[in-house]
Amino acid sequence: MSEFRTTVSVRFGDVDPAGIVYFPRIYEYLHEAFEDVWEQHVGERYYRMIQDERRGFPLVHSEVDFKSPLRFGDVVDVRVSCTKLGNSSTTLRYRLFVGETLCVHAVQTTACVDLDAGKAIPMTDEHRARFALILESAESTA
Amino acid sequence: MSEFRTTVSVRFGDVDPAGIVYFPRIYEYLHEAFEDVWEQHVGERYYRMIQDERRGFPLVHSEVDFKSPLRFGDVVDVRVSCTKLGNSSTTLRYRLFVGETLCVHAVQTTACVDLDAGKAIPMTDEHRARFALILESAESTA
Amino acid sequence: MSEFRTTVSVRFGDVDPAGIVYFPRIYEYLHEAFEDVWEQHVGERYYRMIQDERRGFPLVHSEVDFKSPLRFGDVVDVRVSCTKLGNSSTTLRYRLFVGETLCVHAVQTTACVDLDAGKAIPMTDEHRARFALILESAESTA
Amino acid sequence: MSEFRTTVSVRFGDVDPAGIVYFPRIYEYLHEAFEDVWEQHVGERYYRMIQDERRGFPLVHSEVDFKSPLRFGDVVDVRVSCTKLGNSSTTLRYRLFVGETLCVHAVQTTACVDLDAGKAIPMTDEHRARFALILESAESTA
Repeated sequence: MSEFRTTVSVRFGDVDPAGIVYFPRIYEYLHEAFEDVWEQHVGERYYRMIQDERRGFPLVHSEVDFKSPLRFGDVVDVRVSCTKLGNSSTTLRYRLFVGETLCVHAVQTTACVDLDAGKAIPMTDEHRARFALILESAESTA
Repeated sequence: MSEFRTTVSVRFGDVDPAGIVYFPRIYEYLHEAFEDVWEQHVGERYYRMIQDERRGFPLVHSEVDFKSPLRFGDVVDVRVSCTKLGNSSTTLRYRLFVGETLCVHAVQTTACVDLDAGKAIPMTDEHRARFALILESAESTA
Repeated sequence: MSEFRTTVSVRFGDVDPAGIVYFPRIYEYLHEAFEDVWEQHVGERYYRMIQDERRGFPLVHSEVDFKSPLRFGDVVDVRVSCTKLGNSSTTLRYRLFVGETLCVHAVQTTACVDLDAGKAIPMTDEHRARFALILESAESTA
Repeated sequence: MSEFRTTVSVRFGDVDPAGIVYFPRIYEYLHEAFEDVWEQHVGERYYRMIQDERRGFPLVHSEVDFKSPLRFGDVVDVRVSCTKLGNSSTTLRYRLFVGETLCVHAVQTTACVDLDAGKAIPMTDEHRARFALILESAESTA
């Protein structure tokens, strides 16, 4: 297994009066990492699928542990792997590091959805094959 | 037990190109509901604690199920109860309804923290007493 | 002339580490007031026009004076009037007060646009008539 | 004269249901470019000044022309120059290009402020000297 890596920079507007990243911004980081997975690893522009194919990947379930605060100026190393690859749903694990410190651990499940019909559809085989490359263990494949 | 209720309106800027609320905005709604709990139910201004007492309540763990999409113009009925009331930590359940439909179910645990020392401290008895009023069952009290 | 009035509350997530509202949030307040003008004064849901008629009102020009900072917890009294009502474009003045203090003065010009063709189109007579009611002086009408 | 250059990427969460960047996000891009000017050109971390010296640069006046919409996936070339360098205030021009197209033209004036006293103070000579390097014409210096 390999994992996908990208980086995020904490900006001034992300930091709250308590001096740490306002937590809803962390979910923006997760979405941006998700876009990066699609664009850089899967080879698809996220927006193009939505616009041209009306295929989207809304979040179904999210679990996040906030282990250490992120602060202004931190450059966050984001590592993404796949914990479960279903027919329509995909579960990704995101680990956000600053240096050696694991600051945020997130597990997010998205469904592949026909946006016009508003219901789940299978992922394409091409997409599944790309996510399989970052799957944590072979036996997790549903 | 009673629960705390507040409302949130979905604004234009919250909606993504897929026509539904961009999920990080939902975490902003949860934080706004948390501020409302403090101000309207507990009787404390959240900001005042941070600024004057350097006491904050950062998120430690979050679990959210996205059951039905929120859309532009939805007026969301937010119901908040307490599932666990510890010495320093508090776990709140948020249910976001549009009409009769449960759209989002969230469980969020925050710790009471001394922001200068950067470590957990006990909640005050007054605050605990207020959260106890929305506790789901007496036996959940730690 | 009358003016349109609405309110905005400054939330925790709007405030930066300097203790005042991060200025991009003020532009969100202005857009929210614009949505309120449409919905409450003109009688049109902003989103419905975009979605059903593919008619939008993108910002063309913006001038803002930041006279006094907004702070967490402020309840802002927003007053909106029209300074110029053209064929396709509309210029609105927004004044944001906290108590008697004028904190923000903004003048924003939007064009009525066919979103599919991507070009300016005339406003409907019904919409013009509603904006005329908050026009500052009759001679401003182009 | 030289100008400072940086880039911004349009992300999914920046785009509204009309398919273009929701304009308040453009003000976030401007603030991010302002942070980059401080960090990369002036050689100061913006946050450090606020936190350690309680010196900030709130926006006083803003004028923006939106000439062409920004869209998801655009990589925006941001060019920053100084149009006026006062004792306490600084006026910067930001031009946002996508390819050869000028999409946004902004002029923003900030004041140097003692955040505790809440009043304007002179910029340091070192900071002035750095902004002078991107000044559009020598005679603009106040």
